[in-house]
Amino acid sequence: MARDDGKAAAARRPRAETPRGFRDYFGAEVAARKAMLDAIAAVYHRHGFEPLETPAVETVEALGKFLPDVDRPNEGVFAWQDDDRDWLALRYDLTAPLARVAAQYRADLPSPYRRYAMGPVWRNEKPGPGRFRQFYQCDADTVGAPSVAADAEICAMLAEALEAAGIARGDYRVRVNNRKVLNGAMEAAGLFDPAEPDRLAPERGIVLRAIDKLDRLGEEGVRALLGEGRRDESGDFTKGAGLSAAQADVVLAFLAAKRADGPATLARLAEVVGGSAIGAEGVAELETVAALLDAQGVGPDRAEIDPAVVRGLGYYTGPVYEAALTFEIADEQGRPRQFGSVAGGGRYDDLVKRFTGQSVPATGVSIGVDRLLAALAARGRAPAAGTMGPVVVTVMDRDRMADCFAMAAELRAAGIRAEVYLGNPRNFGNQLKYADRRGAPAAIIEGSDEAARGVVQVKDLRLGAQIAAGASLEAWKARPAQAEVPRAGLVAAVRAILDRG
Amino acid sequence: MARDDGKAAAARRPRAETPRGFRDYFGAEVAARKAMLDAIAAVYHRHGFEPLETPAVETVEALGKFLPDVDRPNEGVFAWQDDDRDWLALRYDLTAPLARVAAQYRADLPSPYRRYAMGPVWRNEKPGPGRFRQFYQCDADTVGAPSVAADAEICAMLAEALEAAGIARGDYRVRVNNRKVLNGAMEAAGLFDPAEPDRLAPERGIVLRAIDKLDRLGEEGVRALLGEGRRDESGDFTKGAGLSAAQADVVLAFLAAKRADGPATLARLAEVVGGSAIGAEGVAELETVAALLDAQGVGPDRAEIDPAVVRGLGYYTGPVYEAALTFEIADEQGRPRQFGSVAGGGRYDDLVKRFTGQSVPATGVSIGVDRLLAALAARGRAPAAGTMGPVVVTVMDRDRMADCFAMAAELRAAGIRAEVYLGNPRNFGNQLKYADRRGAPAAIIEGSDEAARGVVQVKDLRLGAQIAAGASLEAWKARPAQAEVPRAGLVAAVRAILDRG
Repeated sequence: MARDDGKAAAARRPRAETPRGFRDYFGAEVAARKAMLDAIAAVYHRHGFEPLETPAVETVEALGKFLPDVDRPNEGVFAWQDDDRDWLALRYDLTAPLARVAAQYRADLPSPYRRYAMGPVWRNEKPGPGRFRQFYQCDADTVGAPSVAADAEICAMLAEALEAAGIARGDYRVRVNNRKVLNGAMEAAGLFDPAEPDRLAPERGIVLRAIDKLDRLGEEGVRALLGEGRRDESGDFTKGAGLSAAQADVVLAFLAAKRADGPATLARLAEVVGGSAIGAEGVAELETVAALLDAQGVGPDRAEIDPAVVRGLGYYTGPVYEAALTFEIADEQGRPRQFGSVAGGGRYDDLVKRFTGQSVPATGVSIGVDRLLAALAARGRAPAAGTMGPVVVTVMDRDRMADCFAMAAELRAAGIRAEVYLGNPRNFGNQLKYADRRGAPAAIIEGSDEAARGVVQVKDLRLGAQIAAGASLEAWKARPAQAEVPRAGLVAAVRAILDRG
Repeated sequence: MARDDGKAAAARRPRAETPRGFRDYFGAEVAARKAMLDAIAAVYHRHGFEPLETPAVETVEALGKFLPDVDRPNEGVFAWQDDDRDWLALRYDLTAPLARVAAQYRADLPSPYRRYAMGPVWRNEKPGPGRFRQFYQCDADTVGAPSVAADAEICAMLAEALEAAGIARGDYRVRVNNRKVLNGAMEAAGLFDPAEPDRLAPERGIVLRAIDKLDRLGEEGVRALLGEGRRDESGDFTKGAGLSAAQADVVLAFLAAKRADGPATLARLAEVVGGSAIGAEGVAELETVAALLDAQGVGPDRAEIDPAVVRGLGYYTGPVYEAALTFEIADEQGRPRQFGSVAGGGRYDDLVKRFTGQSVPATGVSIGVDRLLAALAARGRAPAAGTMGPVVVTVMDRDRMADCFAMAAELRAAGIRAEVYLGNPRNFGNQLKYADRRGAPAAIIEGSDEAARGVVQVKDLRLGAQIAAGASLEAWKARPAQAEVPRAGLVAAVRAILDRG
């Protein structure tokens, strides 16, 4: 009878691969992220925010086209058609679903509605090193509060959340700015006319994206993008906003308005926006935010006004803010560089209006949890939650498996993490290697000899050196860190090892 | 100038709707699920299982076609093509991704590998009442352990997990069976020949699905499906397996083999499988599982052998198990009915083989967390985690917002959940309604009069009756549950109310 040969069978086998741009998270990685999310959620909760969990899937219609990279508004989501009806997509952030919820349940939600949300979001982008197509966000937003007091609350809460997540005070800075001040500078530069708010909008969009790249391109790079355009190292040319040198000067003066302290910066900003009413409104809002940060005990070592912060998103209408880590890490080439932004947000008064036609004030922040975890790892401070392995009960004899199970159950009933070795028990060395691999603090041995005498061997694996690959049972038992105890003393003996630390 | 009229604008507005078959979870719902997942994860962790988080997205190739509803193997997933390359899909369970991981990282994972995973899964099915296209699963699996000791461990752990989740002992039962016993009964009925294992596979598939419907259709319904077929109430006809009456008798004898206790059931099963070697092997495995459950202190009040449990999935190869809630709830028509299954699993030794060509033993359970939450709600025992609202600091005067922020920050620094009212402060009645809506235990008032005298009003909202919609500030202050305290005594006064409570 004809049978498939091995090769043909192999050719039909599916590839065991994570899809391109996605990754798996194991053990301590999962525990560390959970510990961080729990710590941040506790801060949000203490501030009166309520959890909300929307589905991963939204209609494309509800999501809209508000992806951060405004250069490519039509791309970036994973989408498909649902049974020849609606187009569905995976959410690309947690803000668009909130806007949908705020519109859908507007009669039932408290107003203002403070909510937090955490979970994965998806971007259909070209993956790169450290750049994944699924990652976690952890957001807090206030919907229905027109006052910038809501923005000040979120900025202070962001500082507390970062500290709860393990970022030391001094290692981060929350930077606050206001789009109205930017619009005031644009008005002073002749790029914005309150009487015709839509005129020159494309040019202002280019300006926005150009100044958002200040960190990366420096002042000269931004100046080029404000003017005719810029050719990058690869030779690609990015068309600029076409501003005159005088106009570019006003924009660059805005970006460079930061002074030694908040009041001095505010005074300088008032000069830059000149007679612009919207600009003056923005400066006044920044003053209020600064006063309310102070009232909450958030000083300049934690939050500051920084005109260079603009945030790339087109939909912000007032205060914008971000949190950057201030320490340096080594890049792939070993060169020191700033870690940079780990959270950002702002006021977006028009997102809910898309659905209802009525403007609903809203403001909120998104923390990039995966970047924050990477930062902690770079500082050598990754949370150690749940990294201790279980006590491993070894199996000397398949026929006494029930005894092994009873011992593990006894340990667990005492609150001690424990498991029975469930591989092939014949090679005892493999059991020791397994216990080592699992980071087990202790191993339990009960051979027929021990069983007959009513005792067990308890081995302290944290004291012992690395277990040699081929260690025999006898050699292992001879080590000093092993003790024979009465069977009834099992739990006490293990607890003594754990307490020893 | 021509402007859009309201109608045209409304026509262009997106609908604010959760996609068909999806839902949003608010506040206490999110907190209750999180509390349940945390409780179950703690049990899994204590048993030595490690967390694993795979992405929501897998290649269609890696997922395979193992959806539970084996009648429609080609449907049921949300899928799309990735940039004209691989087809991608949302995972429909947590087992298929585990099989992919076990194959992909087989050189790096400990063996046996115990892992747990929790998160949403997606099914592209017709939504119905209480039937959603995204729901949570909470799985634990052991890969690489050939012994049924691994199955016994998971069955005992399942009982503990259900109790940790709030299901009282006596309100659930873990039921264990073994596909090998079923195959033995099939062999006894002439439906399975170990020498030609693939022959009559379609008929056996129909038998499997028929007996999985015993709960719903009763013995007569199953007998019809074992024979020529069955016409349901709507008039639809389901083709049967075509068994003779004598063959059907053997299968039905298997299903009815449960006796008063485990040993009696095992003895009866040994009779039903007759001389079948595979059947005898299955009975012996069930005996081992029973002994190991006993060793872990899991008695017949928590787990039992039940031949009627077969699980619909085609891929199980040995032990199968499920947990059912034993209490009755009222259905939509108010009639009492069994709540039924909330968790299920079994041994699937061939899933990893799809990728590697080598058989890898594996067994695991999946808990349907959303069904379990519904069960707790039906018993009036929904976890109350995080349901207390924040202390609300009211705002009498916009100019003293900084004072309000300072008070809220002070309360939070003392560990008390607190927020400032951020809506329009002009109508004080709205602030009181808001505090009521938020479930606030207390409200703080500091008018200009209080500020001048260095005091604040602290209102105990849990003592007071429902706040009347239009209550005036004066009427509200007059209530006995309100106290004037020195500003410096704010935290102590609020804590006294919380402790009272």
